[in-house]
Amino acid sequence: MHPFDAAIALQPMDQGTYLAQTSPDYANMIGPFGGATCAVMLNAVLQHPDKIGVPVAFTLNFTAPVADGAFTITARAARTNRSTQHWVIEATQDSGVVALATAVLAVRRETWSNSEATAPAAMPQPSGLARMGSARRPLWVQRYDMRFMEGAFPNDFDGQEQAHSNSCLWLRDDPPRPLDYPALLAISDSFFPRIFIRRRRYSPMGTVSITTYFHTDEAGLAAQSDHYLMGTARANRFHQGFYDQSGALWSHDGHLLATTHQTVYFKD
Amino acid sequence: MHPFDAAIALQPMDQGTYLAQTSPDYANMIGPFGGATCAVMLNAVLQHPDKIGVPVAFTLNFTAPVADGAFTITARAARTNRSTQHWVIEATQDSGVVALATAVLAVRRETWSNSEATAPAAMPQPSGLARMGSARRPLWVQRYDMRFMEGAFPNDFDGQEQAHSNSCLWLRDDPPRPLDYPALLAISDSFFPRIFIRRRRYSPMGTVSITTYFHTDEAGLAAQSDHYLMGTARANRFHQGFYDQSGALWSHDGHLLATTHQTVYFKD
Repeated sequence: MHPFDAAIALQPMDQGTYLAQTSPDYANMIGPFGGATCAVMLNAVLQHPDKIGVPVAFTLNFTAPVADGAFTITARAARTNRSTQHWVIEATQDSGVVALATAVLAVRRETWSNSEATAPAAMPQPSGLARMGSARRPLWVQRYDMRFMEGAFPNDFDGQEQAHSNSCLWLRDDPPRPLDYPALLAISDSFFPRIFIRRRRYSPMGTVSITTYFHTDEAGLAAQSDHYLMGTARANRFHQGFYDQSGALWSHDGHLLATTHQTVYFKD
Repeated sequence: MHPFDAAIALQPMDQGTYLAQTSPDYANMIGPFGGATCAVMLNAVLQHPDKIGVPVAFTLNFTAPVADGAFTITARAARTNRSTQHWVIEATQDSGVVALATAVLAVRRETWSNSEATAPAAMPQPSGLARMGSARRPLWVQRYDMRFMEGAFPNDFDGQEQAHSNSCLWLRDDPPRPLDYPALLAISDSFFPRIFIRRRRYSPMGTVSITTYFHTDEAGLAAQSDHYLMGTARANRFHQGFYDQSGALWSHDGHLLATTHQTVYFKD
């Protein structure tokens, strides 16, 4: 079993209630990698017998630190329309609610299609780039093969402030794994903290809320399979203890698969 | 009383439960302007006696059409930490849940501050631009003084597809009103549908989910007061019945006050 499938595995309890476990393979500095938490919450919807369609929008608020170990997920369809469905998903531990998410699912149909956002042009292919090392990084970083063109995690926190925090990289699961919605969602939370890239110094920080919009159906995911994705991320404003990040994930052949946004707490 | 204050007025019922009314002043084609719905849902949190801090992130899923008339809002703090608070807010009518929102509030503190996003430079001032007319527009459009530099609502749906859907405008409440969080949130949903700007033809459409991040405290709002804001918006990808829009709202003197994102259903 792929470590990601183990990390998002659910044990059904009552209807809409599941038991989940944090995975040591996706451990962060403290507690689990946030992307894994997003993915397992979405998986609770995807496993639910009442589910219709595919994910279009997902928002998760990290309400409190997730402790390593078991947690309970409840997924409830607050509203089901003809072709859209609105879910509320909560993860709880002994301390209370640790993550609170909403998801919109929809039956997608072919329509006029156009991408105004375009992937960065003339980039080296992954084979021409070195994989980022994972020494001194949290364990989850080993679960992604990341090859940076710009804005890598700094080797040293030397305090040399950069002009911006933009990143551009190729990345995929390690071991390679055909892309699905939970994996794409997890990857949307895999960009390193913009505050580290920009300031090259450590700050206590944590994502508070993340929103990811999906721009693909199952066929688009199948076409991507286990190829590298291109990821781009930037910050908008750092101010009074919070900053926001906007990112995009592109297929190996330049289609926009997801856009993702988050607001992040930071100290100092 | 300013029409916006009337539109977001709440009648307290039980603890955390409020009665609200759609306002004819903010009527959309069908039902109310979505920004007014966002604002009244946020107001339910701001009026709640347990509230701490100021809004940092707000997400609302439009689960079903809101009918003109009364609706009930419930606001519940799912988690309160030392300096952050996570809310779940639901609006219901006879048909069931019509809007489902989450809000993150936080006590903001001065930290390192920087804006990587910058407002468009060398723009004409509002006094040098004509106000957009509101003939044949829904009534809510009259409640905003909008002065476009780029990407205005097309005078005619002539089907002449544009190269992009970017918009840039000055805007403020009409009558002018000192900015607060509900007003800023409403304005974040005031960009006309990108699909109309881009294709210059009518499509059935509706916002499915909107997320707004706030980048200012009360002092920043007071400094803006009733000056014009600058708004910028663009689309990322139109595909299989949905497109996403990213926007930003800037103070009269160029500070980023909010970033906003939404995914929108469209037909054809």
